[in-house]
Amino acid sequence: MVQTIPSFVLSLLLLLGAAGADPDLLVDFCVANTSAAQDFFFNGVPCIDPAEARGSHFTTSALSTPGNTSANPFGFSGTITDVSVLPGGNGQGLTILREDFAPQGVLPLHTHPRSSEAVMVLQGELLVGFIDTANRMFAQRLRPMEVFMFPRGLIHFQYNPNPSSPALAIAVFNSQNPGAQLVISTFVSNPPMDIEPLKKSYQISEEEVQTIRKNLGA
Amino acid sequence: MVQTIPSFVLSLLLLLGAAGADPDLLVDFCVANTSAAQDFFFNGVPCIDPAEARGSHFTTSALSTPGNTSANPFGFSGTITDVSVLPGGNGQGLTILREDFAPQGVLPLHTHPRSSEAVMVLQGELLVGFIDTANRMFAQRLRPMEVFMFPRGLIHFQYNPNPSSPALAIAVFNSQNPGAQLVISTFVSNPPMDIEPLKKSYQISEEEVQTIRKNLGA
Amino acid sequence: MVQTIPSFVLSLLLLLGAAGADPDLLVDFCVANTSAAQDFFFNGVPCIDPAEARGSHFTTSALSTPGNTSANPFGFSGTITDVSVLPGGNGQGLTILREDFAPQGVLPLHTHPRSSEAVMVLQGELLVGFIDTANRMFAQRLRPMEVFMFPRGLIHFQYNPNPSSPALAIAVFNSQNPGAQLVISTFVSNPPMDIEPLKKSYQISEEEVQTIRKNLGA
Amino acid sequence: MVQTIPSFVLSLLLLLGAAGADPDLLVDFCVANTSAAQDFFFNGVPCIDPAEARGSHFTTSALSTPGNTSANPFGFSGTITDVSVLPGGNGQGLTILREDFAPQGVLPLHTHPRSSEAVMVLQGELLVGFIDTANRMFAQRLRPMEVFMFPRGLIHFQYNPNPSSPALAIAVFNSQNPGAQLVISTFVSNPPMDIEPLKKSYQISEEEVQTIRKNLGA
Amino acid sequence: MVQTIPSFVLSLLLLLGAAGADPDLLVDFCVANTSAAQDFFFNGVPCIDPAEARGSHFTTSALSTPGNTSANPFGFSGTITDVSVLPGGNGQGLTILREDFAPQGVLPLHTHPRSSEAVMVLQGELLVGFIDTANRMFAQRLRPMEVFMFPRGLIHFQYNPNPSSPALAIAVFNSQNPGAQLVISTFVSNPPMDIEPLKKSYQISEEEVQTIRKNLGA
Amino acid sequence: MVQTIPSFVLSLLLLLGAAGADPDLLVDFCVANTSAAQDFFFNGVPCIDPAEARGSHFTTSALSTPGNTSANPFGFSGTITDVSVLPGGNGQGLTILREDFAPQGVLPLHTHPRSSEAVMVLQGELLVGFIDTANRMFAQRLRPMEVFMFPRGLIHFQYNPNPSSPALAIAVFNSQNPGAQLVISTFVSNPPMDIEPLKKSYQISEEEVQTIRKNLGA
Repeated sequence: MVQTIPSFVLSLLLLLGAAGADPDLLVDFCVANTSAAQDFFFNGVPCIDPAEARGSHFTTSALSTPGNTSANPFGFSGTITDVSVLPGGNGQGLTILREDFAPQGVLPLHTHPRSSEAVMVLQGELLVGFIDTANRMFAQRLRPMEVFMFPRGLIHFQYNPNPSSPALAIAVFNSQNPGAQLVISTFVSNPPMDIEPLKKSYQISEEEVQTIRKNLGA
Repeated sequence: MVQTIPSFVLSLLLLLGAAGADPDLLVDFCVANTSAAQDFFFNGVPCIDPAEARGSHFTTSALSTPGNTSANPFGFSGTITDVSVLPGGNGQGLTILREDFAPQGVLPLHTHPRSSEAVMVLQGELLVGFIDTANRMFAQRLRPMEVFMFPRGLIHFQYNPNPSSPALAIAVFNSQNPGAQLVISTFVSNPPMDIEPLKKSYQISEEEVQTIRKNLGA
Repeated sequence: MVQTIPSFVLSLLLLLGAAGADPDLLVDFCVANTSAAQDFFFNGVPCIDPAEARGSHFTTSALSTPGNTSANPFGFSGTITDVSVLPGGNGQGLTILREDFAPQGVLPLHTHPRSSEAVMVLQGELLVGFIDTANRMFAQRLRPMEVFMFPRGLIHFQYNPNPSSPALAIAVFNSQNPGAQLVISTFVSNPPMDIEPLKKSYQISEEEVQTIRKNLGA
Repeated sequence: MVQTIPSFVLSLLLLLGAAGADPDLLVDFCVANTSAAQDFFFNGVPCIDPAEARGSHFTTSALSTPGNTSANPFGFSGTITDVSVLPGGNGQGLTILREDFAPQGVLPLHTHPRSSEAVMVLQGELLVGFIDTANRMFAQRLRPMEVFMFPRGLIHFQYNPNPSSPALAIAVFNSQNPGAQLVISTFVSNPPMDIEPLKKSYQISEEEVQTIRKNLGA
Repeated sequence: MVQTIPSFVLSLLLLLGAAGADPDLLVDFCVANTSAAQDFFFNGVPCIDPAEARGSHFTTSALSTPGNTSANPFGFSGTITDVSVLPGGNGQGLTILREDFAPQGVLPLHTHPRSSEAVMVLQGELLVGFIDTANRMFAQRLRPMEVFMFPRGLIHFQYNPNPSSPALAIAVFNSQNPGAQLVISTFVSNPPMDIEPLKKSYQISEEEVQTIRKNLGA
Repeated sequence: MVQTIPSFVLSLLLLLGAAGADPDLLVDFCVANTSAAQDFFFNGVPCIDPAEARGSHFTTSALSTPGNTSANPFGFSGTITDVSVLPGGNGQGLTILREDFAPQGVLPLHTHPRSSEAVMVLQGELLVGFIDTANRMFAQRLRPMEVFMFPRGLIHFQYNPNPSSPALAIAVFNSQNPGAQLVISTFVSNPPMDIEPLKKSYQISEEEVQTIRKNLGA
């Protein structure tokens, strides 16, 4: 069964949503205590007793399983090494995202509020691009083992242009919690944003807003 | 004469586009050398000889003049204390933006890749809001002297809901170059972005894309 | 009833004294949990459950009320958007201070150990200045909507030179807890500092020290 | 022809040796000006005129070519996306290293003074491990698509245990210039280090030192 | 011949006044190019060609010579390992200050805008203290090899209480350019600060201001 | 009785092993709560109630006692001002290490994953050196009051070349927990590292590995 877009957005973002702590570590490591009762919240993730750290805390097989690209209309699936699957990554300032694309699948236009990103294609091809704050588009087509850098905080996309073959890529981030925000969140947020500033931002009519919202399942 | 949106976008962003250097200063100040020949580029702005620093380098009247809110379809004008008008701000990690709103004027949906933002209303009212990476909308209506905080890097808007009165506000940023990126840059970038990933990101037709682009003057 | 200076100093500083955490956030926001039992102290302020965040947490009216400039001999009052009044500001690295000046009121010579500062006059005039570590004074007279930048960590002052009109200004800081330390704290600290190093630092006699302490209400 | 170890060490390190600037960027990007005359050195890499930036500056095919694992006695080759091959990566705080291992090839024991590291196996298997400052060894065996995190600054190794098959992996760093220092640099440095502190550090005889130096081609 | 205080202040501060760059290095080292023509200023100090680095660049004998404690009325002399004497320290974020005290000599009340400080007594005794932003004085008497920590940015002093013996101490800073600002700079700045805010800050008369200024040689 | 090397390594590292928090403080100080029950772990050390802070929290006599240089085969002893002996140092980003050397004693080859280091000789002489990532050795001989800077994260050593006199030095670090990792940890780790990658890293035989391990008491 196919997710609505808002639920896709939410699930994509939850993948990226584990709390993190990129300020410099002052211990060798801080293995995430993912079973801690969440009755105390702060800017970071608590650690286990360092004496309990094991090699397995620094390893994950989470990226070994292909994602399901048919669960949403975008034909995309992302799986990330957040601290819930790689507790030893807590405080290390790095995450890896496995990206599965259906034919003509897209990772929709989005930003990462807390990270730069480098993407490397493993199988198939990707058309990628970002827009800078002077409104310029920088796009490229990537073949296997080619790498593209998305500067921190800018709107970008990734797209599999091939009509018949899937694509597989790896994206890396210099934060343990880069976060992700789709530009369409402006249409599918909960609660919905006020119609007037939304209409004026896009210079569209209320009917056009409702059409887009409907298309997006909002 | 009225700007097209793309030129508005560009001019707004150029207002915010001076190079900066928020890494900690290790001198008392680094007054921007705005007349330096730009034949050497690095991550920052060069300084004048500290012996030449004067009190006037730390002062600006740039925010004293109301902006022209009729130069673009949004009914908004922004004026910022970047290093071109406040050279003593180079390296200090702070900027102030004067925001003039026409009745029902909007500062369109955008993000700042390098800064948090706090806005304070001086005259009139503002409806403001941001969306978090879990897709939740947080909105408020502000009266004079009320303050709202936009978390770093998230999509947000500001709107003057009053049909007959302008509004005046001050926004402050913890970067000397917060940068700004409108979500509509996805429709008005130069060069335009590929139509397929754009259609799929918004789940709209090519006709709808062209309509929005046309509305935005692209 | 008029405060003694030491109590003024204390109250001013308490206004600025809420604990903070300017290291980069790795979640979208960390709304301050101001009701948390203070039995656990660390470098920062705990957050509420992010699921409980509301738009009101990012808003404050604290700056809407004029301060009382007659409660101390300086003719100054400061009101700040610390996390106790703006919990959504926790971790965002920005604060705004409302500054009310009586005629000829002064914000006495002080430093902020953790922040740069930009001040903007809203009503009246201010004479402002800072001293750099090479002992140079940089001063300016500001009119409404003019902005002055005080470099991080340097001694500075703000003064309303008008003998008959009050002044109103806004100061902004790139820390959620800039802190403030008056240079006269050297005369009014609790406990008082040793007389010998104090005499020698100012090259004054014990009698002169006692006179100043008495003037300051110590 | 086979390199001596010292030249291998040097070449490996030069791969990792491009100057960098991980302090936060305050422009959208700072495309490395790799053709700039090197007559001015500072902590970073100069940029080209931002107006000259192109999508190709953010792309590299450097990792598409398998490395030559027979050029040194370790059976290892590394190829990295430093600013000389990916100029758009300048200032973005991320690098990717392609790692080719011959059967039983090793990336010798080393540290990265400026980065954490996450490694992901693409083909074959790797035995990996690091030692913490409490002298504990954390080791794991990785299969394709499995990820291991090496905490910042700690001594670690990667080894292909398979006697007949090569291995391919990708390592990612949260610095544009992580740097690498082999522990055997203590035996092959130029000039050689004093014999007494070297003997005493390893508690070995001068003969044993000379044997190791000879084995390493010093 | 005895310096006036302002010249003392200036000379003390020049000792601490070399430009620095505490943002993280992304090269192993950046040996200061102290002979570079100062026609280009930025937030930092340029380096020499790394190929020209020698062990001597990382060494200094500057602290071997006792300072002259009779050149100013404070009976204090400071000598620091800034980049002019220790070029290899450029970018390493550490400085050491040799402190010579005459009997009853004082390092006058001051702050460091960019550093914490730890002081260790080598010979004699010191009475030291700092004031926090809640106006509390923390003081201690130190014997040889005892250490005291001054928190970043707070006003503090060091005093040799012994009427007949000199004292020798070492202070260490976590910045290559901590900077120093004496509180008496408010009386001896150049140009002098306006008399009204100065009088009101200290709640003293113009006559008292002039007396202090005269005592301080202004 | 003489320690085995592994226990020496462990004890040296425990000296350096207290958890820390070098991200910027946003309070004046965060006096370490060293008696807190360790049932909650995070990247840092909890503080006591600031109201309970006393001058004594910022002072330590820990460096007044000479270390025992005969407890291990290296003829070295280190004593550091970590938060267990100087709780006021928590969050201040500075530590001082007292270094006692027996005649021909050595502080074995090691790195600090989180700090630069400056060493100053107080008594005797030291031969010191570091190796950069381009495999170059930088060495110097230091006399009393001479200072040497070790760049962050690089392998270095300190050695007392005098056959008959001890040496005393002070090392300073710009972290409250620099950490230390001996290169011989590769031979004495617990559990021992796999023999194959160890043999291949040093290009030595299993017999040579076992000899070194035996010499080191593993």
